[in-house]
Amino acid sequence: MKSLITVFALLISLTVSATTHPTLLLTKDGVEQIKSSLGTVPQFDVAVAELLSDADAALERPLCVPQPKDGGGGYSHEAHKQNYYDMYYCGLAYQITGKPEYAGKAREIMYAYAELYPTLGYHPLGLSATPGRLFWQTLNESVWLVHTSVAYDCIYDYLSAGDRKHLEKDLFYPMADFLMNGTPDNRANNKVFNKMHNHGTWAVSAVGMIGIAMGDEDLLRKALYGSDGTGKNGGFMMQLDYLFSPDGYFTEGAYYQRYAIWPFVTFAQCIDHCRPELGIFSYRDSIILKAVDALLQLAYDGVFLRFNDALEKGYDAQELIFAVDIAYNADKTNKKLLSVVRDYQKKVLVSDAGYAVAKAIRDGEAEPMVYRSVFFRDGGNGDEGGIALIRSEGEDRNSLVTFKATSHGLSHGHYDKLTVAYYDNGNEIVTDYGASRFLNIEAKYSGHYTKQNKTYAMTTIAHNTLVVDEKSQFGGDIKVSSRYWPEIYAMDLDSRDVKYVSAIEENAYPGVRMHRTLVYADIPFLQCPLIMDVLKADSRQEHRYDYPVHYNGQMISLTVPYEKALTEMRPLGTADGYRHLWVEARAAGGDGKTTYTWMTGDRMYSLSVNTTPSTELYLARIGADDPDFNLRPDPVYIVRENGVRSRTFVSCLETHGKYDLQVEQSANLVHSCESVATLLDTAEYTVAEFGFAGGHKVILCIASADSGKDVAHEVNLEDGRQLSWTGPVSLKYE
Amino acid sequence: MKSLITVFALLISLTVSATTHPTLLLTKDGVEQIKSSLGTVPQFDVAVAELLSDADAALERPLCVPQPKDGGGGYSHEAHKQNYYDMYYCGLAYQITGKPEYAGKAREIMYAYAELYPTLGYHPLGLSATPGRLFWQTLNESVWLVHTSVAYDCIYDYLSAGDRKHLEKDLFYPMADFLMNGTPDNRANNKVFNKMHNHGTWAVSAVGMIGIAMGDEDLLRKALYGSDGTGKNGGFMMQLDYLFSPDGYFTEGAYYQRYAIWPFVTFAQCIDHCRPELGIFSYRDSIILKAVDALLQLAYDGVFLRFNDALEKGYDAQELIFAVDIAYNADKTNKKLLSVVRDYQKKVLVSDAGYAVAKAIRDGEAEPMVYRSVFFRDGGNGDEGGIALIRSEGEDRNSLVTFKATSHGLSHGHYDKLTVAYYDNGNEIVTDYGASRFLNIEAKYSGHYTKQNKTYAMTTIAHNTLVVDEKSQFGGDIKVSSRYWPEIYAMDLDSRDVKYVSAIEENAYPGVRMHRTLVYADIPFLQCPLIMDVLKADSRQEHRYDYPVHYNGQMISLTVPYEKALTEMRPLGTADGYRHLWVEARAAGGDGKTTYTWMTGDRMYSLSVNTTPSTELYLARIGADDPDFNLRPDPVYIVRENGVRSRTFVSCLETHGKYDLQVEQSANLVHSCESVATLLDTAEYTVAEFGFAGGHKVILCIASADSGKDVAHEVNLEDGRQLSWTGPVSLKYE
Repeated sequence: MKSLITVFALLISLTVSATTHPTLLLTKDGVEQIKSSLGTVPQFDVAVAELLSDADAALERPLCVPQPKDGGGGYSHEAHKQNYYDMYYCGLAYQITGKPEYAGKAREIMYAYAELYPTLGYHPLGLSATPGRLFWQTLNESVWLVHTSVAYDCIYDYLSAGDRKHLEKDLFYPMADFLMNGTPDNRANNKVFNKMHNHGTWAVSAVGMIGIAMGDEDLLRKALYGSDGTGKNGGFMMQLDYLFSPDGYFTEGAYYQRYAIWPFVTFAQCIDHCRPELGIFSYRDSIILKAVDALLQLAYDGVFLRFNDALEKGYDAQELIFAVDIAYNADKTNKKLLSVVRDYQKKVLVSDAGYAVAKAIRDGEAEPMVYRSVFFRDGGNGDEGGIALIRSEGEDRNSLVTFKATSHGLSHGHYDKLTVAYYDNGNEIVTDYGASRFLNIEAKYSGHYTKQNKTYAMTTIAHNTLVVDEKSQFGGDIKVSSRYWPEIYAMDLDSRDVKYVSAIEENAYPGVRMHRTLVYADIPFLQCPLIMDVLKADSRQEHRYDYPVHYNGQMISLTVPYEKALTEMRPLGTADGYRHLWVEARAAGGDGKTTYTWMTGDRMYSLSVNTTPSTELYLARIGADDPDFNLRPDPVYIVRENGVRSRTFVSCLETHGKYDLQVEQSANLVHSCESVATLLDTAEYTVAEFGFAGGHKVILCIASADSGKDVAHEVNLEDGRQLSWTGPVSLKYE
Repeated sequence: MKSLITVFALLISLTVSATTHPTLLLTKDGVEQIKSSLGTVPQFDVAVAELLSDADAALERPLCVPQPKDGGGGYSHEAHKQNYYDMYYCGLAYQITGKPEYAGKAREIMYAYAELYPTLGYHPLGLSATPGRLFWQTLNESVWLVHTSVAYDCIYDYLSAGDRKHLEKDLFYPMADFLMNGTPDNRANNKVFNKMHNHGTWAVSAVGMIGIAMGDEDLLRKALYGSDGTGKNGGFMMQLDYLFSPDGYFTEGAYYQRYAIWPFVTFAQCIDHCRPELGIFSYRDSIILKAVDALLQLAYDGVFLRFNDALEKGYDAQELIFAVDIAYNADKTNKKLLSVVRDYQKKVLVSDAGYAVAKAIRDGEAEPMVYRSVFFRDGGNGDEGGIALIRSEGEDRNSLVTFKATSHGLSHGHYDKLTVAYYDNGNEIVTDYGASRFLNIEAKYSGHYTKQNKTYAMTTIAHNTLVVDEKSQFGGDIKVSSRYWPEIYAMDLDSRDVKYVSAIEENAYPGVRMHRTLVYADIPFLQCPLIMDVLKADSRQEHRYDYPVHYNGQMISLTVPYEKALTEMRPLGTADGYRHLWVEARAAGGDGKTTYTWMTGDRMYSLSVNTTPSTELYLARIGADDPDFNLRPDPVYIVRENGVRSRTFVSCLETHGKYDLQVEQSANLVHSCESVATLLDTAEYTVAEFGFAGGHKVILCIASADSGKDVAHEVNLEDGRQLSWTGPVSLKYE
């Protein structure tokens, strides 16, 4: 890590102690400014009004600090969560209003915890490898302390010296020690604290923030540089080096980046307030701000992309309020962030950062968010693959195609190398299942990831990529999967009309080489851009190759006859993931190509794939072998080739039609693609030809052995035609 | 019909001819006013801008009047639709701008039709009993002429006398004659023209409007009083008498009322413009305005209720733009209509009415729409049952419970007597399937109602009402069903805290008496109002009784163990509708009650029903025996009792919980109901007791033999308790 030099430079400067309160999210100057502007900054006034309403509700709530007992969603769990929110609200409200009852309430709750905490052993549920005391897992305990640190910082000056001594001795120090070191007989927490993992970030933030609030340099130092204080074996700075790629991508993916960003921005804000000389927001080429930018890009219509263990969350999640406000506060030239607040979040923090955002919005400084076609490299050094986002051009279009060629993504990763997803017209079109989990719903496996998360959601067949012999990639072994990532073969995201990504994966299935090239092109004679996909699988052995396309919508038509399950339905298979798929219909492929059309919203989507009569087609639905109704009954279309050594799946996905219910007018509801042909398919070249209504043709030329942008290629086709082009991917129209 | 007297009075006055142009939707004075206000009425300026954009697009479009060939959604069908819109846009645009190219374009299209029309026989598709010439059914041809009449009226003064003579002789008179009289060998159209049916309303409007545009009194008279001109055997006035109940309810239900209202308001507007002396909007106690009001009430969140053959349509449907604008223009004291335009439609007609609406909105006259708990009587005389809408009280709640006890509803009716639906929090909760149809989608049975509409959507099991012996009500025979409607036994929709409807159906299943009482009550100790349902089935024979609840959401929990279909799924039965239900899980009822919980949006819904271990429970999903993927895979929960003569299904549906993903906080996710007991169940009385967490109890007392509001009742329970109350339904809390 080249940045270790910087770390040591920072280490040295970390000696001056200067704790005035508040200093974490609010500062003394900030509070003055806020107080003098009340009533003049509308968005901030709303935030203050909501805060006071929450704080007043906290005042009304009888004290309730129960014995730890339940998992997520359960009574004691929710009570302890409510308490940290209540302390947090009351602390901030005290700063804004100066009313002692708020500080008193926070103090009352802290005292109750100071009484309870020393009596606690590990949480009785025993479900986590890192059990907490208040909560079933340490993670929630770190979150508790992050919030409570803010509250403590806010009421610090209200408390007597005796109060502080008592709370620090019986509550904060023991908890910080527990989170940082664990117990003598269970050092798991120490491992987490020093781990390059978002749970570690929560832990160091909690310890660092309570350290700042208590004026304890040592705790802050360990939070920044690991429990051994060296900066070599853990800590926040090292997490900044390791947990994001140089592009700001977090290896677990958008959904967890949302969660991970919270302690990063929060702790960074606190550090910046009390140690501005560290220049934390500039560290590693402004990695924190890059991470916020990457996260905002990894979304469609304000909702985070659903890959890996993702649930549905978006810009309005509370951690994003922190991320956007704090990022703007750190770089006030980034006016695009203001439109995220104005258009999606519609709320700001009661903090110095939130005030800055609200004021800038009031002053009309917001600029529109710009969504880019962009590739985010994965890996601490940016050399572990990545994810490509291809976005439509022009204001009247709103499409996004994603191509995932990242590393595994730690424990929340899926076996989904080279998977594709498609969003259009405000809807998910080609979908990623995301995670199987009912967060916080006790009745659903206590709110944890369900068993089907492993047996279905993580498996390869749950994704839109090649499945070989019905097995998951890397044999479904995370240790193996974590060692590999695809090779990005070629890419052009800058061209206005033809964008592409091409990647190779040779390790997911030993002996099988996968090379997938995705092209997104504005075709002159088609209503919407066309997505062309060439997925080339080569092996010396015979295999069963499945090409699944999970979609969201209503089945409209298939161009070949199919046999629907009428009075009996069976699963597609018994292997990884397959046992969860009911076969709704089966068919034999058309001679040449088969087109499947579904409808989502007011548009049609037609997928035309090269097939022969020996190709098998399946329309399946998730839900078999699911004894507890944990899976969503989503549909999938599967193109299968049996017993072949090589198979190049060539397809195009048309977006077409306009179905206007309001005036009952519809147009262009039938797909245009009339043929899909592979004109040439060798180790060096693949040439595919797509024919469309009206005699139009699109010829896609791929050079598979040399990705040089300036390399000229020339091939002779069987029909005598000669084609020449330059670079790895080229489109021709006829 | 007592109103026939009025009809004759109108007949006499209908002698003055006074055709200035325009006079249908626009008037000469209106156009002057509009022209002088351009740029000053924002909503209207938007409408004009859109109109001109549409008209300009029409100018650009090459003339295309194809030979009739396709059904709905097909090429020729859509082309003829586009043409009537183009003529309509150009006609209006000519009036607003005076630019002759618009009139010229409309003339050009009309001329092409005047050439084509005389050459046409019946439409080649041959799918309809009333085939059109341009379209596969006459209905679309009427719609064509309604629009074209407006266009003709607008360009009338632009055309030469020769133009008019030619167009009227070769196009408009033949078409009016065809729509009114049919052909000598097929008089089906004449029957439709004189029929008390919305297709008839379209036909008379088309003929009447072209009559007004051409200055032909005779056509107008026949449109108003039937093809024999007597007012006794058909025509618009008679439709006004017959097609709406005295409350403005249209017997086919909200979805078709939306469609039916279009020609009613449009033709009425034209009549009012050229024959104000008829006072058409005051006719029959302002029945047209009542119908608009009823239609707006028969909606949830701006979307029409899904009963009968309904698809998803709402306030923004184009016919509603006509309805709301014209209704407001007819009664400018009804300022609530303005908020429907402002909040949902966001557009107005380019017409005198649209101008009036836009101007009033600009002047801040809009008042909030008020949604009522209301009963709409069905039947021309209001004596054929009806539908009750129960709405929540208070601004922070947004719930609607419907109880349907109407007559059959003509050909679009379902076998759904006493069915219930529930809407809450912006979502459908207990659902009605509506229709199985993919309107205008050629690939889906040419856009017609699918076969499964009859075999599933119309059947009783597709609804939330009792099914006896797996058969549909009235044996699924529309002729029998059309003879009967339930008896409304008792009702109170005015009480703030406890609203109820109670109805009896004795004819749906010969030998089985159904008495259903639905109570919607604000219970002091529950988070949201409780829906209690007592469905009492009595017979002298043994039957299988099914109590289905179709819901929208994710299964969360069932309080008894269940057996999920893991590797094989089979249909629930072979009879009406049942063959389309896959059995996903089965269970035996709990001893006392069973609670089923599902989640929709951010809330939980828990249905607790009285059961015994011999009660069978099914979780099923629609989609079996559906060879063409025409059905939606929606879930249903079924409570079944086998081989009993009587069964009183007693249930309560709790709405509870708050699932906040943004801050990951949840509360009250577990149902509160702990017991459901029938304390007394005789021919005279049913007393049900619901127990809730915390020892709370709700006792529901129903007097089934005397619905007098002031009648006092006293019963002795087995446990020695004595209960007394007054009126047919009473609630007690403990």
